[in-house]
Amino acid sequence: MKITALAGGIGGARFLVGVQAALPDADITVIGNTGDDITLHGLRICPDLDTVMYTLGGGISPERGWGRHDETFTVAAELAAYGVGPTWFGLGDRDLATHLVRTRMLAAGYPLTEVTAALCQRWKPGIRLLPMSDERVETHVVVETDEGRRAIHFQEWWLRMRAATPALEIISVGAEAAQPAPGVLDALTDADVVLLPPSNPVVSIGSILAVPGVRAALARTPAPVVGVSPIIGGAPVRGMADACLTAIGVATSAGAVATHYGARRRAAPGDGILDGWLVDTADTGTEVPGVTVKARPLLMTDVAATVEIVRAALELAGV
Amino acid sequence: MKITALAGGIGGARFLVGVQAALPDADITVIGNTGDDITLHGLRICPDLDTVMYTLGGGISPERGWGRHDETFTVAAELAAYGVGPTWFGLGDRDLATHLVRTRMLAAGYPLTEVTAALCQRWKPGIRLLPMSDERVETHVVVETDEGRRAIHFQEWWLRMRAATPALEIISVGAEAAQPAPGVLDALTDADVVLLPPSNPVVSIGSILAVPGVRAALARTPAPVVGVSPIIGGAPVRGMADACLTAIGVATSAGAVATHYGARRRAAPGDGILDGWLVDTADTGTEVPGVTVKARPLLMTDVAATVEIVRAALELAGV
Repeated sequence: MKITALAGGIGGARFLVGVQAALPDADITVIGNTGDDITLHGLRICPDLDTVMYTLGGGISPERGWGRHDETFTVAAELAAYGVGPTWFGLGDRDLATHLVRTRMLAAGYPLTEVTAALCQRWKPGIRLLPMSDERVETHVVVETDEGRRAIHFQEWWLRMRAATPALEIISVGAEAAQPAPGVLDALTDADVVLLPPSNPVVSIGSILAVPGVRAALARTPAPVVGVSPIIGGAPVRGMADACLTAIGVATSAGAVATHYGARRRAAPGDGILDGWLVDTADTGTEVPGVTVKARPLLMTDVAATVEIVRAALELAGV
Repeated sequence: MKITALAGGIGGARFLVGVQAALPDADITVIGNTGDDITLHGLRICPDLDTVMYTLGGGISPERGWGRHDETFTVAAELAAYGVGPTWFGLGDRDLATHLVRTRMLAAGYPLTEVTAALCQRWKPGIRLLPMSDERVETHVVVETDEGRRAIHFQEWWLRMRAATPALEIISVGAEAAQPAPGVLDALTDADVVLLPPSNPVVSIGSILAVPGVRAALARTPAPVVGVSPIIGGAPVRGMADACLTAIGVATSAGAVATHYGARRRAAPGDGILDGWLVDTADTGTEVPGVTVKARPLLMTDVAATVEIVRAALELAGV
């Protein structure tokens, strides 16, 4: 079975572990969010791609869910000792080597797709990991500061401000002019099923959907498209997706997120992308016009629980 | 007293510790060798500048004599795990932060002189540390390989080959077109005394002398110029200076090195740079035409011993 998934970071990666466990022989393509990417200390950092790669490749820190296990932060401490910032980004030593290799390959002219494939040769995540685009699409957040209204990088808002300062607007800088990375549209068109893991609907899935052509490919693919709600009982399972949803005027509820994604209309494809939507039992009774909704426990407490969620999603997709 | 010293790495740095201890109030300028500099993993590395900066700033590994104390090599191990080389350069995690800051500043357009000053703001080495040039001057070594005669970077010959493959030629690439860094010539002209620590006469002191204008400034400065032999009893005290001397056709002896440096002729300045030459008691009786030679123990076994060597050099200089 050919499965294509759109994925952000921690939630997406953990869901994918369940996909692999549920279907060990599946041919899985993951379209990763690169809107969170940032250049710090001259190093190009792709947090979501790395979280997926490390998680599926056995390199992740299971406690944090991001970054490497047995990580140290020596270089970051030294940079701080030099007075060189920012200090709010968790730049681990092991992780830094990944960024060094990536930065060097990008500087040598390799597109991010090939860089990601090269890094995956070490990690062997068992999936094909594609960045959503080889071009820079960076999520910026408009906030009110003491110096007035400013657009700052998503990571600064997310990590330094802990998303506590209200986001007035969330912008995918560069998205309009970006192209999907090679293989992205084909992976959507050729899939037997497309899954939307419980990733952040705004800055993870939303960034991927902002790349021209992706939403249309989802709307038209013959494969069923099923999503798993990242919102349970009116709150995000992890992270601060509520702050992102508020910024774009979407309520923090399983139903509102699905309505935001929109129902697919096979007869007359539009912007909608969902056939099915899996919500938690806390949200039983959620109705989304045009979308088949099913309720079941959605907490990915361990791999076994995640496998059951994946199976329910596949069942909902009818595959 | 204004002291200007030319310095390579470990030997030069240890000598400078003695200079500071002997003359705590002296105004010391160090002209550092940058011929060993190398770019690895996209990071600009200045081993000799860093060895001086770390040694005088309290950051050095006392055991190794180079790199940082309490150093770890996590990033290097990860790079090796990615299959990204070279692996023969000891790239420590703490050290790497220095290279990251330097690389970023250079990329931003700051000359190496200003970058070095910025790094020294943290380390406060108590001296003014100047690179010999802001321009790239890289020592390359011509060796015979299985694929024929090749010019390789000095560091590859020194670290990977351990200087075991004979050097057929040692070249300062870029030296002819390089300019001394701002302050270098003035530091030689305005000094009360110029000291040549027991650094490698070919690839450390020799690289500095290869920068146009440096040799002439040494030949003409009103300050006395006194050197300390890095060769004791026909062998280098540390390192593999003999392999370098052989490459340029100079015998590995205290006298031959001084003859190679040449005697200053105040009446008619030429290429010679030495007024005085301090040799070890093992080399008592060494004679160098035109140079005042004095013999005394030269092993820098500890700071006290080094202080005595410095005092003897200053005495020989008559300051």
